Amino acid sequence: MKQNMDTTLYFITDSTGFEKEEFLRRVEAALCGGVTLVQLREKERTTREYLALAREVHALTQKYDVPLIIDDRLDVALAAETEGVHLGQSDLPVGIARKILGNDRIIGATAKTVEQATEACEQGADYLGVGAIYPTTTKVKTILTSTDMLRKICEAVPIPVNAIGGLNKDRLEVLAGIPIAGVCVVSAIMKAADPKIAAEELMEATKQILKK
Amino acid sequence: MKQNMDTTLYFITDSTGFEKEEFLRRVEAALCGGVTLVQLREKERTTREYLALAREVHALTQKYDVPLIIDDRLDVALAAETEGVHLGQSDLPVGIARKILGNDRIIGATAKTVEQATEACEQGADYLGVGAIYPTTTKVKTILTSTDMLRKICEAVPIPVNAIGGLNKDRLEVLAGIPIAGVCVVSAIMKAADPKIAAEELMEATKQILKK
Repeated sequence: MKQNMDTTLYFITDSTGFEKEEFLRRVEAALCGGVTLVQLREKERTTREYLALAREVHALTQKYDVPLIIDDRLDVALAAETEGVHLGQSDLPVGIARKILGNDRIIGATAKTVEQATEACEQGADYLGVGAIYPTTTKVKTILTSTDMLRKICEAVPIPVNAIGGLNKDRLEVLAGIPIAGVCVVSAIMKAADPKIAAEELMEATKQILKK
Repeated sequence: MKQNMDTTLYFITDSTGFEKEEFLRRVEAALCGGVTLVQLREKERTTREYLALAREVHALTQKYDVPLIIDDRLDVALAAETEGVHLGQSDLPVGIARKILGNDRIIGATAKTVEQATEACEQGADYLGVGAIYPTTTKVKTILTSTDMLRKICEAVPIPVNAIGGLNKDRLEVLAGIPIAGVCVVSAIMKAADPKIAAEELMEATKQILKK
């Protein structure tokens, strides 16, 4: 599974405020628009609800041959048999997750410092999300990360590093020349008038930035 | 591990309102007083906090050779290497948990009907918690279960069935003659002036009821 991991345009979901059918429709539109990785992130659901939604989203991601990453909940990832988990600093440590999941599943981690990045990498993370680059409405309490720090982290670890936080197609210019592997977006696709077009435009803009 | 499972006096923790040191002191006092099984139940913590507390409680339960069950979170149980998980109707289905955990760990389930009980049993549950027999302050929205239903469930499944919900040493008489394996308590020990003495008295009262 890991061989297929492409973090170029990493779409993180947020079902807040959407009816389930509309949420799933938007996820599929994003897949149709070319997102390369999907993360399901749910905080307010019971385990059984999280599992049920994970299975529905997984059916969509499998259709487009895109790996599905579950935020935080390794139990949900195991139960839904998704391709991986994403672990923040309040979630399970990467090393423990790797021990439980083995080597076939993707483990991503959030890092805000070089120390966190190298630690996650040493413990077996497959990619890092670094941010927030811009203030974000998704995580209101998050601390901003400078593009200088982002560059330092990219240079410190051998695994793909994605920029995250308030990014949209008009805000990618600050990332030019930094050796990131891709970008993570939530609202720019989730709340777009047309998620498919938003994904297509973001992909184009991301590819341009990665060349610079 | 399962061979050692004894549900006679099953203590379910609730750390709400306690400083960590006082919480751990009370858990150890309960162990010292003879509880035969401990469940850690936390709803408001991050995964990493839940894991950290699970490890501290596990160090205590291991000292007294009592299995530690984690409520809901199979990922925490795996990460802390505890002896089992307890699954309610909003948590992972028992069958999926059994598939992930294998046969060495204890899986308990909550059941309020004969149908839920036989389903959990068929999917591999090792014991059932049935209630609430009395109204409880721990789960304010819970639905009461009659002692008649408790008896029916005991007669329908071959695994140990525990009564739960608002139980204390003065309220066990209603369970006389019902083939339960033991009782589950939260507040009766957790909030007792002296948790050790509370556990000792509950054990004595439970043994008396199980004989009737």
